[in-house]
Amino acid sequence: MKHLLPNRRRFLALSLPLAGLTACKKGVPTEIGAPLRAYGERSPQEQFVRDVRESVTPGTGSTRTPLQDLDGIITPSSLHFERHHAGVPAIDATKHEILLHGLVEKPLVFTMDDLRRFPSVSRIYFIECAGNSGAEQAGNPQPDPQKSAGLFSCSEWTGVPLSLLLKSAVLKPEAKWMIAEGADACMMSRSIPIEKALDDILVAYAQNGEPLRPEQGYPVRLVVPGWEGNINVKWLHRLHVVDQPSMTRDETSHYTDLMPNGKAQIFTFPMEAKSIITRPAGGQKLAHGAGPYEITGLAWSGRGKIQRVEISADNGATWQDAELQTPILTKAATRFRLAWQWNGAPTTLQSRSTDETGYVQPTLDELVRVRGRFYQYHCNAIKVWHVNLDGSVSHV
Amino acid sequence: MKHLLPNRRRFLALSLPLAGLTACKKGVPTEIGAPLRAYGERSPQEQFVRDVRESVTPGTGSTRTPLQDLDGIITPSSLHFERHHAGVPAIDATKHEILLHGLVEKPLVFTMDDLRRFPSVSRIYFIECAGNSGAEQAGNPQPDPQKSAGLFSCSEWTGVPLSLLLKSAVLKPEAKWMIAEGADACMMSRSIPIEKALDDILVAYAQNGEPLRPEQGYPVRLVVPGWEGNINVKWLHRLHVVDQPSMTRDETSHYTDLMPNGKAQIFTFPMEAKSIITRPAGGQKLAHGAGPYEITGLAWSGRGKIQRVEISADNGATWQDAELQTPILTKAATRFRLAWQWNGAPTTLQSRSTDETGYVQPTLDELVRVRGRFYQYHCNAIKVWHVNLDGSVSHV
Repeated sequence: MKHLLPNRRRFLALSLPLAGLTACKKGVPTEIGAPLRAYGERSPQEQFVRDVRESVTPGTGSTRTPLQDLDGIITPSSLHFERHHAGVPAIDATKHEILLHGLVEKPLVFTMDDLRRFPSVSRIYFIECAGNSGAEQAGNPQPDPQKSAGLFSCSEWTGVPLSLLLKSAVLKPEAKWMIAEGADACMMSRSIPIEKALDDILVAYAQNGEPLRPEQGYPVRLVVPGWEGNINVKWLHRLHVVDQPSMTRDETSHYTDLMPNGKAQIFTFPMEAKSIITRPAGGQKLAHGAGPYEITGLAWSGRGKIQRVEISADNGATWQDAELQTPILTKAATRFRLAWQWNGAPTTLQSRSTDETGYVQPTLDELVRVRGRFYQYHCNAIKVWHVNLDGSVSHV
Repeated sequence: MKHLLPNRRRFLALSLPLAGLTACKKGVPTEIGAPLRAYGERSPQEQFVRDVRESVTPGTGSTRTPLQDLDGIITPSSLHFERHHAGVPAIDATKHEILLHGLVEKPLVFTMDDLRRFPSVSRIYFIECAGNSGAEQAGNPQPDPQKSAGLFSCSEWTGVPLSLLLKSAVLKPEAKWMIAEGADACMMSRSIPIEKALDDILVAYAQNGEPLRPEQGYPVRLVVPGWEGNINVKWLHRLHVVDQPSMTRDETSHYTDLMPNGKAQIFTFPMEAKSIITRPAGGQKLAHGAGPYEITGLAWSGRGKIQRVEISADNGATWQDAELQTPILTKAATRFRLAWQWNGAPTTLQSRSTDETGYVQPTLDELVRVRGRFYQYHCNAIKVWHVNLDGSVSHV
């Protein structure tokens, strides 16, 4: 709780105007409430959903997590973002198999039941689509956190370390890459360097306690900590160990980064340090006029832990350290907070994260200067919100 | 990942018999899958629910978390256990208020909007009903993890530190207790020592990212880390600061511990160190006969962090340290695991946890020797599962 003291002390100094006792309209409940339910649902008053964007190509599109409506770091599974390339396949888990073959001594087939017999691991990791915030990069600032950065979610994933499956199959010395293939209709495939495959990748069958949801790859997916979402292959059914990358559609025509000189960067896997203020943010209003508010949001890095988040509430003139909610976990969302006194004047709010490698989240101008405007992926620029005189918050 | 190495090495030595390549029945998907959804749901193949137990008294009863079906430490909000005393009230969050009065200098009223302006905290904490495993204590061993210990769940809770609200109201020197009252029809009330109220209690409005579910106290509840579930007052609408406990129904006729000498212990708040193996466990089957299996389960302590979990797979003759999933959080569920080779003979499986205070989870015999059979609450005895010759697992 050590980290919280400065913020709390700051807050107590900010003098929130609270109603005195006379304002209390306390009612007495009189009726027995609703009965028990076998499976819980949300309050009718809290029905926010994912923003759905369907593409003209059948079965492709995305849904976005409503970051502005959420607290903490865990994204409810029902609200985890989706990105599909051929719809959501209906897979019978009792018949599903993963084939592991190629440059291995013992090609193997794993049923879901086999996977369950291996030692498992549970880890809280974020997944972010490489295309998250691509509109910002292209010069189209988005009006709220969900639209700006909602292709980002964070869950507790459980599964088998991929390294254990590879060791069971025994890699041949010439094994350098692994092609992971999904069982969706497009057999979405990505090439993964064998060093990462032997490091922290999970063959995951559970999310936030439950079996994976269909949209998240039921019954089994890869979770590739810190790396772009697309490589976290869902509905996993094949692992092909090879000596070079496969140059699949989704690592050549998509998910490559077009530079200003016309050349494209390929295999740019990690998602760099990023952050976004989720409250107060675009689409919201500071309903009480000048006075104290809590600024909060999320920060993350595909390179490890978040070390620092700074907030500027004065058009970038000064920056203050936000407090970071503990535990700070590697390659997971980190919630940040700062008690803030709005003086009633128009201003901007922005957050800037630094990860444990020392990398500092850049401004959009800095990013565009290096990458240009056609670099659709990996946009991790600082997002700036504008607070207007009437307390409404909009994008800049 | 350091903790995991011994278990993985153990596992690789256990030789899981996996199918070779010839057994692969790989099908090729041909049809575009299901479209995007604004709010996700579970796979039709994974529809486990809470065990519902209604009482004869209207609006009272409980639901239990299906621990045997879950992974990791986070309980999905839809499956968090429930215990109600007058049903689930339908509260309009926009009109809801918390009255804070009594031995304070400035009685205050907080709307939900007021609470949102205070600095917030997110923490992963378990909540366990004091009556969890009461049937075991009474001599009626339960057949599966859900029925035995399913009045236990673990979530990421977000809210305002209660200490901050109390400091805003300024406690008078004679303030020694605080009565928390719910807005359900029975106005469920509990007395809390002021030291705890100033320590780690949250006035929580969110669970696992989302606003509280109705059954969990929407729009606001207390989360009282490590203390019996009943005191985590839901639908919170009043905090009354007083100089002595109120002796409410739920701390006198209920939630007191009847000792063999006919006297009852009162205000026995913390839930002591406990653990349960959730797989393999009663109601399940070791479907592959003799061979390697993963033993896994949950451990927790209301006194702090879990320090150690030992597992015996030989009728208690020997005990081996399980590996503990990191991060190990205070007053939260800790997932434990051990790779195990079943030799095909009947045996028992049991887990024993130790917390950071050095307290060791007792056997049921030890507990009964001290407490007798009428001590319905706070049963934290070691749960023993019996593995039968045919691989079926049952209670002892």
